Amino acid sequence: MYDVVSFGEAMLRLSPPDYLRLEQARSFDVNVGGCELNVAVGLSRFGLKTAWVTRLPRNPLGRMVANKAREHGVDTSNIVWTDGGRVGIYYLELGSTPRPSQVIYDRKGSAISLIKPGEVDWPKVFEDTRLFHTSGITPALSKSCAEVTAQAIEAAKEAGCKICFDLNYRGRLWSPEEAEKCLSRLMGKVDILITTQFDTETVFGMKGSYEEIASQLKERFGLSVVAITLREVRTVLTGGWTSLALADGRFYRGKMYDVEIIDRVGAGDAYTAGFIYGYLTGDVEKAVACGDAMAALEQTIPGDLSWFTEEEVQKQLKKADLRIQR
Amino acid sequence: MYDVVSFGEAMLRLSPPDYLRLEQARSFDVNVGGCELNVAVGLSRFGLKTAWVTRLPRNPLGRMVANKAREHGVDTSNIVWTDGGRVGIYYLELGSTPRPSQVIYDRKGSAISLIKPGEVDWPKVFEDTRLFHTSGITPALSKSCAEVTAQAIEAAKEAGCKICFDLNYRGRLWSPEEAEKCLSRLMGKVDILITTQFDTETVFGMKGSYEEIASQLKERFGLSVVAITLREVRTVLTGGWTSLALADGRFYRGKMYDVEIIDRVGAGDAYTAGFIYGYLTGDVEKAVACGDAMAALEQTIPGDLSWFTEEEVQKQLKKADLRIQR
Amino acid sequence: MYDVVSFGEAMLRLSPPDYLRLEQARSFDVNVGGCELNVAVGLSRFGLKTAWVTRLPRNPLGRMVANKAREHGVDTSNIVWTDGGRVGIYYLELGSTPRPSQVIYDRKGSAISLIKPGEVDWPKVFEDTRLFHTSGITPALSKSCAEVTAQAIEAAKEAGCKICFDLNYRGRLWSPEEAEKCLSRLMGKVDILITTQFDTETVFGMKGSYEEIASQLKERFGLSVVAITLREVRTVLTGGWTSLALADGRFYRGKMYDVEIIDRVGAGDAYTAGFIYGYLTGDVEKAVACGDAMAALEQTIPGDLSWFTEEEVQKQLKKADLRIQR
Amino acid sequence: MYDVVSFGEAMLRLSPPDYLRLEQARSFDVNVGGCELNVAVGLSRFGLKTAWVTRLPRNPLGRMVANKAREHGVDTSNIVWTDGGRVGIYYLELGSTPRPSQVIYDRKGSAISLIKPGEVDWPKVFEDTRLFHTSGITPALSKSCAEVTAQAIEAAKEAGCKICFDLNYRGRLWSPEEAEKCLSRLMGKVDILITTQFDTETVFGMKGSYEEIASQLKERFGLSVVAITLREVRTVLTGGWTSLALADGRFYRGKMYDVEIIDRVGAGDAYTAGFIYGYLTGDVEKAVACGDAMAALEQTIPGDLSWFTEEEVQKQLKKADLRIQR
Amino acid sequence: MYDVVSFGEAMLRLSPPDYLRLEQARSFDVNVGGCELNVAVGLSRFGLKTAWVTRLPRNPLGRMVANKAREHGVDTSNIVWTDGGRVGIYYLELGSTPRPSQVIYDRKGSAISLIKPGEVDWPKVFEDTRLFHTSGITPALSKSCAEVTAQAIEAAKEAGCKICFDLNYRGRLWSPEEAEKCLSRLMGKVDILITTQFDTETVFGMKGSYEEIASQLKERFGLSVVAITLREVRTVLTGGWTSLALADGRFYRGKMYDVEIIDRVGAGDAYTAGFIYGYLTGDVEKAVACGDAMAALEQTIPGDLSWFTEEEVQKQLKKADLRIQR
Amino acid sequence: MYDVVSFGEAMLRLSPPDYLRLEQARSFDVNVGGCELNVAVGLSRFGLKTAWVTRLPRNPLGRMVANKAREHGVDTSNIVWTDGGRVGIYYLELGSTPRPSQVIYDRKGSAISLIKPGEVDWPKVFEDTRLFHTSGITPALSKSCAEVTAQAIEAAKEAGCKICFDLNYRGRLWSPEEAEKCLSRLMGKVDILITTQFDTETVFGMKGSYEEIASQLKERFGLSVVAITLREVRTVLTGGWTSLALADGRFYRGKMYDVEIIDRVGAGDAYTAGFIYGYLTGDVEKAVACGDAMAALEQTIPGDLSWFTEEEVQKQLKKADLRIQR
Repeated sequence: MYDVVSFGEAMLRLSPPDYLRLEQARSFDVNVGGCELNVAVGLSRFGLKTAWVTRLPRNPLGRMVANKAREHGVDTSNIVWTDGGRVGIYYLELGSTPRPSQVIYDRKGSAISLIKPGEVDWPKVFEDTRLFHTSGITPALSKSCAEVTAQAIEAAKEAGCKICFDLNYRGRLWSPEEAEKCLSRLMGKVDILITTQFDTETVFGMKGSYEEIASQLKERFGLSVVAITLREVRTVLTGGWTSLALADGRFYRGKMYDVEIIDRVGAGDAYTAGFIYGYLTGDVEKAVACGDAMAALEQTIPGDLSWFTEEEVQKQLKKADLRIQR
Repeated sequence: MYDVVSFGEAMLRLSPPDYLRLEQARSFDVNVGGCELNVAVGLSRFGLKTAWVTRLPRNPLGRMVANKAREHGVDTSNIVWTDGGRVGIYYLELGSTPRPSQVIYDRKGSAISLIKPGEVDWPKVFEDTRLFHTSGITPALSKSCAEVTAQAIEAAKEAGCKICFDLNYRGRLWSPEEAEKCLSRLMGKVDILITTQFDTETVFGMKGSYEEIASQLKERFGLSVVAITLREVRTVLTGGWTSLALADGRFYRGKMYDVEIIDRVGAGDAYTAGFIYGYLTGDVEKAVACGDAMAALEQTIPGDLSWFTEEEVQKQLKKADLRIQR
Repeated sequence: MYDVVSFGEAMLRLSPPDYLRLEQARSFDVNVGGCELNVAVGLSRFGLKTAWVTRLPRNPLGRMVANKAREHGVDTSNIVWTDGGRVGIYYLELGSTPRPSQVIYDRKGSAISLIKPGEVDWPKVFEDTRLFHTSGITPALSKSCAEVTAQAIEAAKEAGCKICFDLNYRGRLWSPEEAEKCLSRLMGKVDILITTQFDTETVFGMKGSYEEIASQLKERFGLSVVAITLREVRTVLTGGWTSLALADGRFYRGKMYDVEIIDRVGAGDAYTAGFIYGYLTGDVEKAVACGDAMAALEQTIPGDLSWFTEEEVQKQLKKADLRIQR
Repeated sequence: MYDVVSFGEAMLRLSPPDYLRLEQARSFDVNVGGCELNVAVGLSRFGLKTAWVTRLPRNPLGRMVANKAREHGVDTSNIVWTDGGRVGIYYLELGSTPRPSQVIYDRKGSAISLIKPGEVDWPKVFEDTRLFHTSGITPALSKSCAEVTAQAIEAAKEAGCKICFDLNYRGRLWSPEEAEKCLSRLMGKVDILITTQFDTETVFGMKGSYEEIASQLKERFGLSVVAITLREVRTVLTGGWTSLALADGRFYRGKMYDVEIIDRVGAGDAYTAGFIYGYLTGDVEKAVACGDAMAALEQTIPGDLSWFTEEEVQKQLKKADLRIQR
Repeated sequence: MYDVVSFGEAMLRLSPPDYLRLEQARSFDVNVGGCELNVAVGLSRFGLKTAWVTRLPRNPLGRMVANKAREHGVDTSNIVWTDGGRVGIYYLELGSTPRPSQVIYDRKGSAISLIKPGEVDWPKVFEDTRLFHTSGITPALSKSCAEVTAQAIEAAKEAGCKICFDLNYRGRLWSPEEAEKCLSRLMGKVDILITTQFDTETVFGMKGSYEEIASQLKERFGLSVVAITLREVRTVLTGGWTSLALADGRFYRGKMYDVEIIDRVGAGDAYTAGFIYGYLTGDVEKAVACGDAMAALEQTIPGDLSWFTEEEVQKQLKKADLRIQR
Repeated sequence: MYDVVSFGEAMLRLSPPDYLRLEQARSFDVNVGGCELNVAVGLSRFGLKTAWVTRLPRNPLGRMVANKAREHGVDTSNIVWTDGGRVGIYYLELGSTPRPSQVIYDRKGSAISLIKPGEVDWPKVFEDTRLFHTSGITPALSKSCAEVTAQAIEAAKEAGCKICFDLNYRGRLWSPEEAEKCLSRLMGKVDILITTQFDTETVFGMKGSYEEIASQLKERFGLSVVAITLREVRTVLTGGWTSLALADGRFYRGKMYDVEIIDRVGAGDAYTAGFIYGYLTGDVEKAVACGDAMAALEQTIPGDLSWFTEEEVQKQLKKADLRIQR
């Protein structure tokens, strides 16, 4: 039914304009973002058939979140609507050197964190679905979320879906020990793992070069594909982005993108969207190339979502032309 | 030490500009408001020495809330700072006929709702303090809030403070039965009660004319002063405001103000501020007059707080001049 | 497949904020609107399955238009995408008494006006569809649009769809004579006609009371249902709204709504959405009631689209409560 | 050379958006306004050849002021540029009932207040000029301004110009006694006086009906035409406007306009522009009609200036159509 | 009568704020720009007497465009006003590395593209005029525009004006072949040609170093002065600017400016304005120096127009002081 | 009573958003700033008890200024309120390379410039106060300001306060000769002098390396501590910041901070706040370290004030982490 289904939380993102500090704010720009929604949006815009599963309260804020998914063509018919719970919030303050950007989470008690096993009919969702994506954030939200995530992965596996997982460790949600305990179990069913050197060391204690880490992960969990993203933090407002992937016994290396950062949040999810797109419509080489292009582009626009077209990503793969396009 | 101390919660108030619906919002105007803070601010601006007691998280949002109190000269040295809890939020959508304005609360788990008895040194706070103000919202926030409210009222009474109480029933926080049970007990120590016909009927089941209600309240709880505010809802954007008070065996009636409503939230708290000011610097007649003027004025500006001066209220008492003032 | 399919143009709507004149503008608020899109959005939000057919250029502006339909759940899979043509624009200046609001159209050469017969597979679109809606604007856009409209109506009829038509005469697009010639022919297949006294007189030269006009229209064109909307222009910023419908030999009269106007554009389309919703889920009485409530509500928010829920319309049918809703 | 020349000060006008109080402001909308500039702009937009004489500092703010005149086609070649002095400011707070709008002037030391006799070559300015306009504000700015105003009026008279004068008493600039002393002397050369009942009583101590005041003024100063404007203050946001004029021994009465006020500042100057336009292109009857229409329209847009066309004023004279104009 | 007359189109420029993509926009910043208007504005601000000839519709948007010219002192009395046609639009999306800025034109059917020979009285316009400027965009707009451009150049030549021409090839308007055919003919009458290496190669197929291209152009078309501008695209938000000119048998080289780009559109036109200014008030050396300074400065402000003073350009010629100026 | 008292002027700061030039502005962002207020705010936020002494008019603008001090906890009870005078203004235009940022002062006639000796009860203000801070701007405002500054310093000295002085030469307010004459006299009582190489040379004619200048200043005026701040202007939007101090016979050198500049105004005052904080809570080494960190951070946020916490400064001292903080 779908090319890709994702499962996770999206939050209101409230950020003061014009580099104001949160404490100075008189207004907040409102965006909606969350790892798995971001991925679904990026993929839908490239023409894939996607669905996003979450749990939302029946109120204007819940509807706003679902609207943003629909705006980009993501199927929202599997969202669980509820009268309890809230829409989580994250406050984002954008900085400049030497003041780093900063996130304050206010997501406790969100509708999805109160989800109960059985509320989503996973086998129906995964019928004729090619790939399931979720991240390490979803099971970290609550015990029941962890349980539902495990059931989703199992159901996906049974339905013959590929499983793509973004490790995405969040220290505010759980400890490395809790994360390792939970995620190690899930890894067994995962096909594609996307992560960073930092998260891998934090959660699994693995050290070494990017290549070594990829190899260790692949081996320990029996993964088909491991992708490691590399964000080069030059200043708060400029950076570099590249990645490497390990699959079929060889390494695929992306090119290094220079980025003038307008808003760095969502780059990782854009990478995942690009990666899955390249993987489903080509191979791991295309996956790395599309992932890197998307991640670089995503940092040049406000918001977590990827407002790009497949054609724009293709242009980046050829040769970046920085002149004005008329 | 203070003329007036108040105790209660303040929230971030997030509202879309330009009569947009919440679901349409791309930005929120940020204000800070809460019954007891609003009252303290109104009084401080009139030259009284005020303090506001609350509990706030040590983060930019908690600081923002405290800053707004300080901005108007309210003492914040008795605020309890904590590493847990959050700043509650209320979303406000401003309407026009026939679409009413609408509030969505997202205040669960706020830092003040997690307050514990003993965290505030009430006897010290009330040393040489003339009046203590709180409302029916504070004990409704949580059991521990109810407990601390009761202790505060007791301590205030012992310190010789007058107690002013705004009934302020909030159906989202507790049932009428819970409210009655809790508030009836507190009423015994209250000197001045400010409320509406609607809340009185809901919580105490009292019916009748404004005068009858005032009399019943006074009698049942042994109050010195009862004030009933009357908001006339003509359209969503226009209305009337007046009030009456019962004290010393007679009724004091305010004049009816016509109001072109810019933002109706906070009118009741402005009334309370004006009432307390009039009461502490004059008598019940002045209290009613200042309360009504403040409530009318407050609806002409954005936000919950009263950005008025004592001189401006005096002008309204004389004769409203609607021509441009040069 | 769909409950309702609509066909027509949507434009970018550019309007200066804060009652500025167009000539004064330094910025434009951007909205998207167009009769048939507005209707589809209103219906989709009430839970009906809707699709909107149009023709759009493959560029960011074309995508923006389609996004707005998707945001509200309207199916866009039948949109014809093209490399030629443009997205039409209408400039809107909002006035206050005695300066009326004003629209400047800049829609020539829009992608839909260049549509060619055969580009839409109407029989497929109307498979299992209950109702087709379009308006007098669509055939007025160009000769080929008129042709395609006629084909669409024919195909809808053949597929067993009800045909709903909003007369919507636009003097900038064609003369009354041209309109009459074209529309008279289409009327023969229409089931439900929604119009105003003014348009009826202009296009068909019919005069008389609302009831007489409804009767004349019904008779002349053999319509099942005729609805006449009545907008009472009190001032530029306040007005009244009601309607009457003729069906099954009797008149259905709606109640008169008082409206504080934030943005009056789209009221007629909101009426149509409400009317169709009431008609498809109930009867003509419900149609009139829902139509009027929607039209009144729609004028209280910025933009052409109806951001309301079925529940909010139901509340209006009971009794408008103008107090703040907490 | 010109149809109309005016002489006076224009200031930056700083006003908080959205009915915020000045004390609440985080941003100011920037406009430029001043009695005589406003008049020149209104006239230039109607196709008359106008020039505005003032004195401005050579800096971005001085240039901004001159730009606004040029934007509407007003000749600025007679402006005196200087390295001293500043651009005066007025802060404007827009209110709603019962909070009146409020102006705070900060105009001391403005470049024009430091003007010296001889800096303007009046005979050259008035060559082939039909009418000179100034107001009671200009001589009130400083002694040298009063001197230069007297010289300008004298030079205009000698050049055969008509003299139009708006009494415009400003209590913050001088006392009624000072005003009377200065203005009485100037009145002898004035042809057309435009004023209000209130200003007339304040400055000249005249009392009576509008007609009586007009007659007294005409008689005492030997004026050709006297126009009295009548602003009906209903609420802060709604009002009425009309006027009457006395000339050639008869009274001309305008119609009463109902106004939904967006920004009431500049209405009097718009009236003067309309009046002069009607007078120069027709007669006193047309003058009153155009003046009233302009004054009503001007209150429906933000800013002091009149962004209207002659055609729009003509439409108002016929019959106000409050429906949206497509 | 004028120092400089220019002829061409100006459009509304609609751009989303804050680096938002066009597809994301909820508002557009409104500017007005067009090659020949931009040049006239830059020159007028330096004290030259300039006129801009174009064709505009009689509506608020047409007036807005003319107002912007007048705001900077450009004479608009030769504009042809019409009831047909529209104001063209260009949408501008500002990017950051690696997302380039992007322009979408929507200019078909603009009033100027419908101009007819004879509508402008060129001999009268050029009476006592020193220099005429236009660009390769104007003849590309339509056949009649090409015809009128040719007539204008001829008339200018006859009146003894210098002719300055900016090659400005626009691939969306015509093919290189069409451009070469049309422009080659016009070149014969041109005195000063301003262009880029890229455009020269595209239109005339010339290759080589900057110096060689200048020499080839000079020789082939018998030009007096050829200027080649060099924009160094370092990143999307930073760049360099310089130029060289060939005249009187020698090369004039400008200095290289480093630029932090706020808005790169209009830099070329600012160069032309600076160049013409330097040329008319000095020599080719001054022309190059002023051109480069203007082009660099123009990229530091939003909009197409040059809001600079002659004094500010002089300061850049001496030594750029990047410290805050108090 | 206080840890630190400062004395000086604060102005409204009006700046166009989005790098617009002043002349282009349609709105101004409103901030409040002034050397001594900025210092007091920075210190108060770090937990020190501070008071700011100034003179303000009793109007909304005067109140706005005082509110900003109170918002950050600065005691305003010693402010002199008056019915005369105005709030000074400074207009700020933010630039990018090669256009420098620019300030236009409009501060003549400010309330503080009209202060009279005796209006502040200095001995009372300094009771139990540890340090007094003022700058070379305050005595430059007017003769009476110079007189009051001298009295303040004398009173502070007598009360046993340390005196901290920021040389802050402002060429628009007085000549180097006037400055030297006045400031030389004050220097005798100063303990801590903070200045730049540029100001030192301008006012005292001292030349040499930073170290030599520090030594000369220390020797000539018998200072305990001399701090020299070094702002490296790389481009308009990027720079470096460091400083050195001389005390107890040795030099203390800060580290060099790289800065992406959002708003460079207030960096020097932030330095002073950090320096005083480090000095009062530690030693000169800590003073330099805290000063540099504060100065760097302050340039990353809009406005003159330092919205930082002691904890954030501590983080900078350790090691700047430029990654997003979650």
